[in-house]
Amino acid sequence: MSTPESQPPSEDAASVSKKAAKKEAAKQEKLRRRQEQEALAAATRSLAVDDEQDPLAANYGDVPLNEIQSKTVEDVSRWTEVGALTNTLENRSVLIRGRAQTIRAVGKNMAFVVVRERGFTVQCVATVQPDTVSRQMVKYVAGLSRESIIDIEGVVSAPSVEIKGTTQQVEVQVRKVYCVSKAAVLPINIEDAARSDAEIEKALQAGEKLVRVNQDTRLNNRVLDLRTPANQGIFRIQSQVGNIFRQFLLSEDFFEIHTPKLIAGSSEGGAAVFRLDYKGQPACLAQSPQLHKQMAICGDFGRVFEIGGVYRAEDSYTHRHLCEFIGLDVEMEIKSHYSEVMDIVGRLFVTIFDTLNKTCEKELEAVGRQYPFEPLKYLPETLRLTFEEGIQMLKDAGVEVDPMGDLNTEVERKLGQLVLEKYGTEFYILHRYPLAVRPFYTMPCHDNHAYSNSFDVFIRGEEIISGAQRVHVPELLAERAQACGIELKTISTYIDAFRYGAPPHGGFGVGLERVVMLFCGLNNIRKTSLFPRDPLRIAP
Amino acid sequence: MSTPESQPPSEDAASVSKKAAKKEAAKQEKLRRRQEQEALAAATRSLAVDDEQDPLAANYGDVPLNEIQSKTVEDVSRWTEVGALTNTLENRSVLIRGRAQTIRAVGKNMAFVVVRERGFTVQCVATVQPDTVSRQMVKYVAGLSRESIIDIEGVVSAPSVEIKGTTQQVEVQVRKVYCVSKAAVLPINIEDAARSDAEIEKALQAGEKLVRVNQDTRLNNRVLDLRTPANQGIFRIQSQVGNIFRQFLLSEDFFEIHTPKLIAGSSEGGAAVFRLDYKGQPACLAQSPQLHKQMAICGDFGRVFEIGGVYRAEDSYTHRHLCEFIGLDVEMEIKSHYSEVMDIVGRLFVTIFDTLNKTCEKELEAVGRQYPFEPLKYLPETLRLTFEEGIQMLKDAGVEVDPMGDLNTEVERKLGQLVLEKYGTEFYILHRYPLAVRPFYTMPCHDNHAYSNSFDVFIRGEEIISGAQRVHVPELLAERAQACGIELKTISTYIDAFRYGAPPHGGFGVGLERVVMLFCGLNNIRKTSLFPRDPLRIAP
Repeated sequence: MSTPESQPPSEDAASVSKKAAKKEAAKQEKLRRRQEQEALAAATRSLAVDDEQDPLAANYGDVPLNEIQSKTVEDVSRWTEVGALTNTLENRSVLIRGRAQTIRAVGKNMAFVVVRERGFTVQCVATVQPDTVSRQMVKYVAGLSRESIIDIEGVVSAPSVEIKGTTQQVEVQVRKVYCVSKAAVLPINIEDAARSDAEIEKALQAGEKLVRVNQDTRLNNRVLDLRTPANQGIFRIQSQVGNIFRQFLLSEDFFEIHTPKLIAGSSEGGAAVFRLDYKGQPACLAQSPQLHKQMAICGDFGRVFEIGGVYRAEDSYTHRHLCEFIGLDVEMEIKSHYSEVMDIVGRLFVTIFDTLNKTCEKELEAVGRQYPFEPLKYLPETLRLTFEEGIQMLKDAGVEVDPMGDLNTEVERKLGQLVLEKYGTEFYILHRYPLAVRPFYTMPCHDNHAYSNSFDVFIRGEEIISGAQRVHVPELLAERAQACGIELKTISTYIDAFRYGAPPHGGFGVGLERVVMLFCGLNNIRKTSLFPRDPLRIAP
Repeated sequence: MSTPESQPPSEDAASVSKKAAKKEAAKQEKLRRRQEQEALAAATRSLAVDDEQDPLAANYGDVPLNEIQSKTVEDVSRWTEVGALTNTLENRSVLIRGRAQTIRAVGKNMAFVVVRERGFTVQCVATVQPDTVSRQMVKYVAGLSRESIIDIEGVVSAPSVEIKGTTQQVEVQVRKVYCVSKAAVLPINIEDAARSDAEIEKALQAGEKLVRVNQDTRLNNRVLDLRTPANQGIFRIQSQVGNIFRQFLLSEDFFEIHTPKLIAGSSEGGAAVFRLDYKGQPACLAQSPQLHKQMAICGDFGRVFEIGGVYRAEDSYTHRHLCEFIGLDVEMEIKSHYSEVMDIVGRLFVTIFDTLNKTCEKELEAVGRQYPFEPLKYLPETLRLTFEEGIQMLKDAGVEVDPMGDLNTEVERKLGQLVLEKYGTEFYILHRYPLAVRPFYTMPCHDNHAYSNSFDVFIRGEEIISGAQRVHVPELLAERAQACGIELKTISTYIDAFRYGAPPHGGFGVGLERVVMLFCGLNNIRKTSLFPRDPLRIAP
């Protein structure tokens, strides 16, 4: 039975650094206290309901569990999506399901509920009316808890004045309302989590102190945090990046592979590897699909790509590192030059950017409302500079760097600025890196072995892609590994794969979360990982 | 620098069971001896080359490394793909790159090479001719080692007789030939690995003993094994399954998520979990994305899917279990009934089958040549039977089973036969399973708590999909977990996710490798995993 499904793994509390945790706990406690008071107030209001029998009781109430256990097959087209509620439906009766985002009573005869479904919101109004809406029903509506899932049957009306604070420009006059799933008191409010810093500052200047939800609180309550319009947008954009990546590559005669993440032995990388016991054998999690995607090329797969998990046990506490992320990997035969790989990179990413701008307008807007950003500047033909040219640009700008060393994050950012000023693009390729700063499997340049047939690609001054022509000659591969201090016997299987005829090839790897982060100008990679994993966080 | 790329993890030798390993070693040794003799003979032939200076020496030879280190950017359109060589190119000069699949000399003036590129093959002929092809060149061609990567420049000719043994019905008259990458002596020959059992039997009856390459030898030499036409087909079909899965779901308003595989604590599952140390905390690899895909639904994602690694440390030595496989997972809000999930399953898989039959004709043919199979029988509208109906069919056929127990593999196969006979389909859904045989998070039926709102789906009598409506009520979830003997504190994060309003929802999971295996009627899941991981194998 049921192999692909199983019982969900358990999760312990997140381990956050003690100092941050303490501060966080105090904040949470304060927040919770406020919310408990609110809840108590709501409960008190609810208790005040007069108990008289209501002949209209069938029009509202909590749905008994039994009714939502697949009792009847209903025509799902009975429901209208909140996002589809427009004035073309005026005077029509509709059935909607969504969350009670905010609830507000006005006296005893009227209550407002803003219902939210997948980021879209509509205002619903329950007004006491003979034969349809009773006072008790209005009280029931007023007593709903925030974020509860409710079904509302009602009639669409289109007020002549603009409706503020909802995405939909119509209202629903409530006829029936049922609560499908009750929410407990919330640790964070969605409106608080959805607020931009600018809004908080503006309110502060006007003397009002609004709640600011910090990153750790968000991640500890990720299920609530994900409900904000910005997050609804971010993960739809992420899905679209993966989709465009695949569709572009499929159209270029690549196909998709899945390489194993469980690898025998312990990687030569040492500290940066997650080790585990595999049926009594030492094993580890793949730090990249490098080995196996190259083996697929040796297996005559020609052009391949993979979208899969990448695992790094590094102690990186930066805004751009995760211990688990999604790698977009490409590997391909080349006829003669690594520029063939850079051609793919250039066209692929221009396609990704173009298509996102075209198809994710609403999502990008939603992200921008909370986290304002400038649209990415890029050229139709991707700019390529050699590493030497980059060094020269830095030098001309008075930045002294080791011409044969690697660039650090700060220098990369500076170079990004210089490139933007000179060429008007925030997306470019820097190639022909010094050999010494690249992995051992990188092909040295034909004319100067101090350089290599490799490249990095930058968005808004940050590296997102790394690629190269690979060494396909086993003897040279062994020589390079030794020169890099790697014990040959630990990579013998890898080297052996090239002994039976290996086509010249190259490829590259990209982090999905980084692409989304940098395209949207976000400041932290944790914002683009659904349930991020860093050295301090492995939950929820 | 280069974060998504890193040094490839090392790999130890595969750990295969001792007995099998010994047998395998002997076989390998024998094979190798034969191949070394062949190589020696070839080398001897090569040594016999007369050493006289050849004025045509520039037309052939080994390409120096320097030339394939991205020395010049060449127009890749200079090369013609082997698969594109047809008689419309007659008398045209072409440049091809591929592997020397077989090499055969006829006297001193003629040599044949079959060149293979991504499964396509063409015969190339080098004949001594004044001013173009020297005797030394013919000798050079005859001395090429099998599976070497070569560039051939030549003229296409279309012989009037049928060419046997190649996919392309033209020949190439060799003018120039260069070896790009030399292959060492092969541990297995591609023709041997590509042979069907039927061919071996037929030859045996004619008194000829052909080499049969067994599964372990194939997997130990996976890079060579992957070059067979059947494997070239299998993994292109696999890629296409993933593609259709995603395109169908995207068109139905689902979007793609990526959930973490690194999970805190140790799963309640016990033995079947890979444990690891996460920065000093106990952690494990996700046995399914169950928890997190449900959390995405609680985060208002509405309809999601995921394609990602699934890790099971089970000691299953069957033809259908792997320790690492690719899960195709779906989770969605439902309005009222789990039949909404079954609707998606039915339409999704009919789309997958239809599209494979239409778009992968060549690939399916290639698989069928080595592993003959009957096309899958399925209905345009997917058959649904209740578990009770299934039990009754078995009973009527004289098969006694526990009406409230699970079905074992043998009984499932029997039921598959009965369904095929009665309904003419090898693809069907069995639903309303006894609650006791399903995971704790499965929603019980509204009318009988001994049954559940769940289903399994079968192809050719084997289960491939498992799905259900989930319990979205935290109190019931806790109750069900306790009833199943699960300690609540180990799953508190999971249960908490449902406290802030949870939409009724359901979903399912499928193993990608199983879909491909069963659609193609293959007998072992190791055939559809690129680098399979089972309790005895973690390499290459």
